[in-house]
Amino acid sequence: MIKVAINGYGTIGKRVADAVAAQKDMKIIGVSKTRPSAEAFIAQQRGYPLYLADLAKKSSCENLGLKVSGNVEDMIKQADIVIDATPGDVGAKNKPVYERLGVKAIFQGGEEHEVAGFSFNSDCNYKDAIGRQFARVVSCNTTGLCRIIQAMDKEYGVAKVRAVMVRRGSDPGEVKKGPIDAVVLNPVTIPSHHGPDVLTVLPHIQIVTMAMIVPTTMMHMHAIQMDLAKQGSRERVIEIIERHPRMGLVRKGTGITSTAELKEYAMDLGRCRADLWENGIFEESISVAGKELYLFQAIHQEADVVVENVDAIRAMMGTVKDPAVSVRMTNEAMGLKAL
Amino acid sequence: MIKVAINGYGTIGKRVADAVAAQKDMKIIGVSKTRPSAEAFIAQQRGYPLYLADLAKKSSCENLGLKVSGNVEDMIKQADIVIDATPGDVGAKNKPVYERLGVKAIFQGGEEHEVAGFSFNSDCNYKDAIGRQFARVVSCNTTGLCRIIQAMDKEYGVAKVRAVMVRRGSDPGEVKKGPIDAVVLNPVTIPSHHGPDVLTVLPHIQIVTMAMIVPTTMMHMHAIQMDLAKQGSRERVIEIIERHPRMGLVRKGTGITSTAELKEYAMDLGRCRADLWENGIFEESISVAGKELYLFQAIHQEADVVVENVDAIRAMMGTVKDPAVSVRMTNEAMGLKAL
Amino acid sequence: MIKVAINGYGTIGKRVADAVAAQKDMKIIGVSKTRPSAEAFIAQQRGYPLYLADLAKKSSCENLGLKVSGNVEDMIKQADIVIDATPGDVGAKNKPVYERLGVKAIFQGGEEHEVAGFSFNSDCNYKDAIGRQFARVVSCNTTGLCRIIQAMDKEYGVAKVRAVMVRRGSDPGEVKKGPIDAVVLNPVTIPSHHGPDVLTVLPHIQIVTMAMIVPTTMMHMHAIQMDLAKQGSRERVIEIIERHPRMGLVRKGTGITSTAELKEYAMDLGRCRADLWENGIFEESISVAGKELYLFQAIHQEADVVVENVDAIRAMMGTVKDPAVSVRMTNEAMGLKAL
Amino acid sequence: MIKVAINGYGTIGKRVADAVAAQKDMKIIGVSKTRPSAEAFIAQQRGYPLYLADLAKKSSCENLGLKVSGNVEDMIKQADIVIDATPGDVGAKNKPVYERLGVKAIFQGGEEHEVAGFSFNSDCNYKDAIGRQFARVVSCNTTGLCRIIQAMDKEYGVAKVRAVMVRRGSDPGEVKKGPIDAVVLNPVTIPSHHGPDVLTVLPHIQIVTMAMIVPTTMMHMHAIQMDLAKQGSRERVIEIIERHPRMGLVRKGTGITSTAELKEYAMDLGRCRADLWENGIFEESISVAGKELYLFQAIHQEADVVVENVDAIRAMMGTVKDPAVSVRMTNEAMGLKAL
Repeated sequence: MIKVAINGYGTIGKRVADAVAAQKDMKIIGVSKTRPSAEAFIAQQRGYPLYLADLAKKSSCENLGLKVSGNVEDMIKQADIVIDATPGDVGAKNKPVYERLGVKAIFQGGEEHEVAGFSFNSDCNYKDAIGRQFARVVSCNTTGLCRIIQAMDKEYGVAKVRAVMVRRGSDPGEVKKGPIDAVVLNPVTIPSHHGPDVLTVLPHIQIVTMAMIVPTTMMHMHAIQMDLAKQGSRERVIEIIERHPRMGLVRKGTGITSTAELKEYAMDLGRCRADLWENGIFEESISVAGKELYLFQAIHQEADVVVENVDAIRAMMGTVKDPAVSVRMTNEAMGLKAL
Repeated sequence: MIKVAINGYGTIGKRVADAVAAQKDMKIIGVSKTRPSAEAFIAQQRGYPLYLADLAKKSSCENLGLKVSGNVEDMIKQADIVIDATPGDVGAKNKPVYERLGVKAIFQGGEEHEVAGFSFNSDCNYKDAIGRQFARVVSCNTTGLCRIIQAMDKEYGVAKVRAVMVRRGSDPGEVKKGPIDAVVLNPVTIPSHHGPDVLTVLPHIQIVTMAMIVPTTMMHMHAIQMDLAKQGSRERVIEIIERHPRMGLVRKGTGITSTAELKEYAMDLGRCRADLWENGIFEESISVAGKELYLFQAIHQEADVVVENVDAIRAMMGTVKDPAVSVRMTNEAMGLKAL
Repeated sequence: MIKVAINGYGTIGKRVADAVAAQKDMKIIGVSKTRPSAEAFIAQQRGYPLYLADLAKKSSCENLGLKVSGNVEDMIKQADIVIDATPGDVGAKNKPVYERLGVKAIFQGGEEHEVAGFSFNSDCNYKDAIGRQFARVVSCNTTGLCRIIQAMDKEYGVAKVRAVMVRRGSDPGEVKKGPIDAVVLNPVTIPSHHGPDVLTVLPHIQIVTMAMIVPTTMMHMHAIQMDLAKQGSRERVIEIIERHPRMGLVRKGTGITSTAELKEYAMDLGRCRADLWENGIFEESISVAGKELYLFQAIHQEADVVVENVDAIRAMMGTVKDPAVSVRMTNEAMGLKAL
Repeated sequence: MIKVAINGYGTIGKRVADAVAAQKDMKIIGVSKTRPSAEAFIAQQRGYPLYLADLAKKSSCENLGLKVSGNVEDMIKQADIVIDATPGDVGAKNKPVYERLGVKAIFQGGEEHEVAGFSFNSDCNYKDAIGRQFARVVSCNTTGLCRIIQAMDKEYGVAKVRAVMVRRGSDPGEVKKGPIDAVVLNPVTIPSHHGPDVLTVLPHIQIVTMAMIVPTTMMHMHAIQMDLAKQGSRERVIEIIERHPRMGLVRKGTGITSTAELKEYAMDLGRCRADLWENGIFEESISVAGKELYLFQAIHQEADVVVENVDAIRAMMGTVKDPAVSVRMTNEAMGLKAL
């Protein structure tokens, strides 16, 4: 059993915790919070030992009925590997602790590539992660791009990618963030950081990304165009997506044309937290004209990296060498079946 | 086993179906749709036989891999009781069919009181429903009002209720409905229909309601003031809510101050579809000054009536005479525990 | 003085009315409504005679203090030219009336190209409109695309355009339309209708468009990529935009990065109704790499076609033969100066 | 001519500047910014001399073509009175400067009452402001409450006010603020600060307020109930509102039922920045039953305090002793006529 600690039990951390707990070869030995919160009560309900960044908050937790098992270092010392799901740029500050304690750690996409020196995606470079002390699971948008680009690149070769990312303004529970009624260019400059971030995983790809933020909490939407190296076919692209373990077809027959309906569908399917761990690619949008491919894909900002974190654990621990085996183990334990 | 049919497998229908399926004394014998949709695939996944309003759509369903068991009348003939969860005012059109086929039916709050001639709330008038052919479960807002008013009325007597209902503009999946950026008075006139609707269940209460619609999909929010017949105490009000099986305290310690965070909490708790079947009453808001009570409660528009429908089935079938027993059976089967 | 009637005094109609009234060579002889409304009071305040589609509503108007001058045919008979700003597809139904009465008419982009048989843009085909009885001013999105494509095509030749249109869900006052919290693919299929619509004006251009709807009321946002026929330069593109009478640079120095801030700026500039009649092109976004051009432009859905309608009047009446002269007259009368 | 400086040329400051500039007895001698921005360009376009909080930013302004006249102290020294429209709590920090330079200053509602020691509303206590060095114009919500409460109190006596304030999440241009999809109790506790804030102007009133924030940028909406000291009549309440210079009736005949439609109407009326300086009271909502009054009023958060600032200038300077005269001067100069 791989002993996993979750440093930062928030939007991503709580999902990775449940994903890890569902695996037969892993277990959660603790999760950390900086202060009492709704999520701390959830950790307790799930039976995850709660650790605090600062034990000065211990009594305020205990007064609320929250049991505290120690501080973050106490937690890390028991772990084989730490999922660092702290807010952006905090991971970089935590790294020296992981180094000092000699523990493996996985950072999230809010950190710079250089923090880990290696950026991970299960489809693209699983084997390169084997044995590493540090890795960074790329952001939700980059993960979604890497999956579809890698799949098309393997089949056709990809000469150029142009992608427009229409990003949700906040996660559902982040009630202080906007915008309320605006499209915000973020950044105004082109390319956005997403293109270069794809290169940390797929350095040979030519890609230009443009990004904006809109007033929704649901999912990101990608409008993607690719120049393929050879003539493609719509049927073959659909087939590749259908067979891919982390891409799902949003089928015409469902009548789904929006992120909100897709999330409702995931919820109705009984998915934990209505999570879509896979790219949601709209079947009807897939268009191939000669060497050009166009499609829309929805990316669940809170979810697609969760399964990648689980695979990264196995790769870095070296317990499973074959990416396909790890992906299958992860997916089965979480109930990820075709949409 | 009470045989239950769901006529109208949509936002409410799909939830009642799962709630019924979870009860030991009931089973779903079929659900109906007017056309193929995402929800039809969900019915199939859950194992609910699918019936069509019009068999002309049968082949289009079958082409999508959806098995069709017959038309709506075929379904009704097998049922002891029908949950009519069709859109507002369609229930009234269905009533003659239920009469002709001699089946019991439960309508929803989108229908007029007169359609059933009896409006139901588990707390207020369960016993009056025993043996009836028709009942109407009042709307989500009215249900939420009835629960807290009835509880305060039993304890203190309620001389007057003034409530402002800040309503969500659409359910999450209803992407055509607005508003996007406006507060819409609905209606502009005072009182809104909610006050009179409470009177269909609690005819002796004095109540004035005001209502507006805002750009959110999450939950309704009620700002409630009551004139009590005698002096109240905040501690006692909290105690009553804590002990009530269908009211939940949103505790200060969770840090939750919004509908979105409350839904996130329900999701994290593992609730099916993140549903809050209970009134979400904000602990910190509860204020008692002499004979005046003030509080905020959040009402999950898709969920609070679901448990009421289940109780109404037992009452109308006459299988459980004691409301407290039915409420306990319903709650336990669904995992409704204190927030 | 060209006598202009506005058939349909709504979002577009009221703006064209004020734009026409501001011109020295035109005047408004009447505007029409189907029923009393806030806009009918505005027409009266502005001194535009009010006509009704159906005189049965006359007394309900008069009871509110609204003077009624007659029915729509009474209005049309006095006009040299009609601006048909009725809702989509109503214009097609009105066309036989215009034919019977022998009056010129301008339709809006909600009508099919075939209704008028000629689609108009001031930059692209003003002279082809001279003397015509019917023309259609293309939609706001198509107008915005035509302007930038035509300008780049004249300078460099445009080999291919790929554009993603992120569209506002409703106009600010349309409180029934959504979505509230979703990105809606509209359509899911690729290309959207915008690309083919550009071809009604610029038939030689290769263009693929993708479109979605987001929960904002402010403006549309276009993410545009063009393959130029020869090497471009950022400085030259900026210069072309600066000199263009209907394209404006959103300069870096203003700090504006969103549609909402851009509308605020237009409002602060004292623009009538905060209207942006020009494409709002974000200076910092303009990127040229070899033969590829990328940029973001904001399109005010209620405004950019207004100035085109005014030019189309002059072209069809044949009073001004030179498009540059008409554009200058229109802009000056409306106070359209560089952002 | 009263010489007025605007310290903080933002949402409120830019509106007060234009309102002051429109008065015959006042002029703007300067406005201040902390850094270059879209608003700095607007100041220049309007001809208001621009001053900087910190002259270190002077060259970055000048590089953008913005002329800088000096620092804030240079501006204040030329002024008879300063409008402090800096962000909340900054006014308190500025007060010692105003004291040292011996200049009068008006603070906004984001400051505590104690900063000025006197809270101002034109209807309620104009004469008490005569000759003062400092005053605070109460916030938009408090101003809107004071107007209607004072008017009803004069006519009937007001025994108790209960008000629910449904507040906009952000101003239109504030694209970083949310919520996107939530109702946020702000505060969760009852009463909100609005009730006590009314007491700074009307200390004898009994009032309880409840407040929440919703995802709109348009206006606040107040749901108000009052216990009157004697029997009221709907007709008389309407008459009082019609005759009041700062309250407007949103008439049934306009069909307006929302904040967005009301703003559109103000825009169509040609109001500067579509501002509603008056309470927008919905005619159809006004309900009187015995001694109880209910109504809805919309409050434009950016606008209603603007006219109050202008009156406060005259009161504090002592140039106009009669509040009715100042209100009439202010309104006429700004074109505030009945809705």
